[in-house]
Amino acid sequence: MFHKDMTATVDYAAYAAATPKGPLERTTVPRREVGEHDVLIEIKYSGICHSDIHQVNDDWGSSKFPMVPGHEIAGIVTEVGSAVTKFTVGDRAGVGCMVDSCRECEACQAGQEPHCLKGNTPTYNGTGKDGLPTYGGYSTHVVVTEDFALRIPEGIGLDVAAPLLCAGITLYSPLARYAAGPGKRVAIVGMGGLGHVGVKIARAMGAEVTVLSQSLSKKEDGLRLGAHEYYATKDKQTFKDLRNYFDLILNTVSADLDANRFLSLLRLDGALVQLGLPETPIAVNAFALARGRRTLTGSLFGGIAETQEMLDFCARNGIGAEVEVIAADQINEAYERTLASDVRYRFVIDTSTI
Amino acid sequence: MFHKDMTATVDYAAYAAATPKGPLERTTVPRREVGEHDVLIEIKYSGICHSDIHQVNDDWGSSKFPMVPGHEIAGIVTEVGSAVTKFTVGDRAGVGCMVDSCRECEACQAGQEPHCLKGNTPTYNGTGKDGLPTYGGYSTHVVVTEDFALRIPEGIGLDVAAPLLCAGITLYSPLARYAAGPGKRVAIVGMGGLGHVGVKIARAMGAEVTVLSQSLSKKEDGLRLGAHEYYATKDKQTFKDLRNYFDLILNTVSADLDANRFLSLLRLDGALVQLGLPETPIAVNAFALARGRRTLTGSLFGGIAETQEMLDFCARNGIGAEVEVIAADQINEAYERTLASDVRYRFVIDTSTI
Repeated sequence: MFHKDMTATVDYAAYAAATPKGPLERTTVPRREVGEHDVLIEIKYSGICHSDIHQVNDDWGSSKFPMVPGHEIAGIVTEVGSAVTKFTVGDRAGVGCMVDSCRECEACQAGQEPHCLKGNTPTYNGTGKDGLPTYGGYSTHVVVTEDFALRIPEGIGLDVAAPLLCAGITLYSPLARYAAGPGKRVAIVGMGGLGHVGVKIARAMGAEVTVLSQSLSKKEDGLRLGAHEYYATKDKQTFKDLRNYFDLILNTVSADLDANRFLSLLRLDGALVQLGLPETPIAVNAFALARGRRTLTGSLFGGIAETQEMLDFCARNGIGAEVEVIAADQINEAYERTLASDVRYRFVIDTSTI
Repeated sequence: MFHKDMTATVDYAAYAAATPKGPLERTTVPRREVGEHDVLIEIKYSGICHSDIHQVNDDWGSSKFPMVPGHEIAGIVTEVGSAVTKFTVGDRAGVGCMVDSCRECEACQAGQEPHCLKGNTPTYNGTGKDGLPTYGGYSTHVVVTEDFALRIPEGIGLDVAAPLLCAGITLYSPLARYAAGPGKRVAIVGMGGLGHVGVKIARAMGAEVTVLSQSLSKKEDGLRLGAHEYYATKDKQTFKDLRNYFDLILNTVSADLDANRFLSLLRLDGALVQLGLPETPIAVNAFALARGRRTLTGSLFGGIAETQEMLDFCARNGIGAEVEVIAADQINEAYERTLASDVRYRFVIDTSTI
């Protein structure tokens, strides 16, 4: 089969939203034939990220349909192009939030492909260099240049590895950037799909880890996964007890939070890293930044090299996501449950059920 | 003379605001007698900082009267306490924004006394450890512990040195923190009392320096003082031309600016440092931070050790402020002119006229 620009394609089964707000239904989508630098990955598991739901719902106003979401992809290489050197058939491989970038700008040269000045190619809802729409991981297969495929080390189950490709690297990257480790006090705001992986990684890095969650309902899990302390943010006393305390706060919550309250928990030169993307601007008092030279910053996922580093780190430390594996026909229900925070802690689709 | 708590005091001439909004008039104020760790400085010059006007006007709601403003103080040591080792009579000395701190908290231990967790003792509008109100530099003399007095090197005129004690260190500190130097692209937003000193210091550090000013009215001065480039922010093209360009932007403007527009001028991992303190919160789009891992932070003035480093740096590089020296009876007029931005670039009071 040929795409309109004469790119040879092969159709694969997938779950797609045909129109905004879904539902997601079984269909097929075309992917390019395996080029010389490409690998074909038979997807085994694909995580459901909260941003998939935003994209399906067109919350950010840039969604294209049909849409096959999914950028937490883990599987097995079943075909490699003639020039491929990094993978052989049978290798465990993953794909995260992007499948290409310009590779030439200063961000790409610095290994920060998510920040590509020309825009990276997102794993879905984008357009590849092949001219085709990109389709994500809710599918049986994906074709990707080997440079944007990751090696998934032995020792991590593919099901619990899948969410590392987005949730894992999104937390690992700022933890690494701010050198979380022994002697550093790290707070993770939000004990969800992102937060729970952050707890595990920060703990493995050697930091002192505190969860700041709305309530104490997940405290037992938090401590079990590695947190040293667990506080409820609905309790005003939390903000008194922890004033000037943390070196680093990673805010995984997308809902509007009072950034100034969280900034007040930072000690000298501490950083608040916003990982969730609230819809309204964050209102910051200049004095809350000046006092203690506190920093507010953001982060996307990480570059390819850093993502590989994260996977290797997680394998060495026995870290995977806490997952609930579902069949493909449960995707729409899983979206409802994700929106209701009724998941501990990540839905992962068994793509053999597609 | 004795203060009510039996601290022995001596009265000195000063210009004070008796009530909010002034005017400032000649009076006398009590200062403690020189203690064993104190120096008495005969003030020669005292700069007028914009924040003096805010304090006199009680804009921040914490002003105490009578108030003697002034935290840009340069003079000569005329008496030293028995235990003083850092100064002898006749030394050139300065006092900046604070005259003491707890000296024990982690900020003080880190040499970041402005961020003292118990609060530093401001040079005026505060209460000293002696129990007396602190009075600033619009006066003939000041008594200060030697640990919070600075050595003003030979080679800088005391008149042009005075503003370095606030304006100079306020710019030097973030420039040093973010390693401004060769290969770094630094923007200074606002070509006023703070900004013009920032241009000089950043240039001397070896950075590529750009001024971002509302208009081009001070362009000639900016280039003369060391800027490589000078752009008008009222010109929309500026924000297109300089997108993703700077490593560091120091915003000296207190007025509300669109932080997102300035963030868009930062390259990967760049920092926007807010030095002016706008009255309304800064509204930041989370995505403007996430994209490029941009940082928004604040800064106060600097610690004592860093302030000394700054003065030594300025002396080595022939840097002083651009000043207009006035007599004490021109202070009220100078306030009006400062509010109207009619000063190039700092008023300095010749305190012999008090």
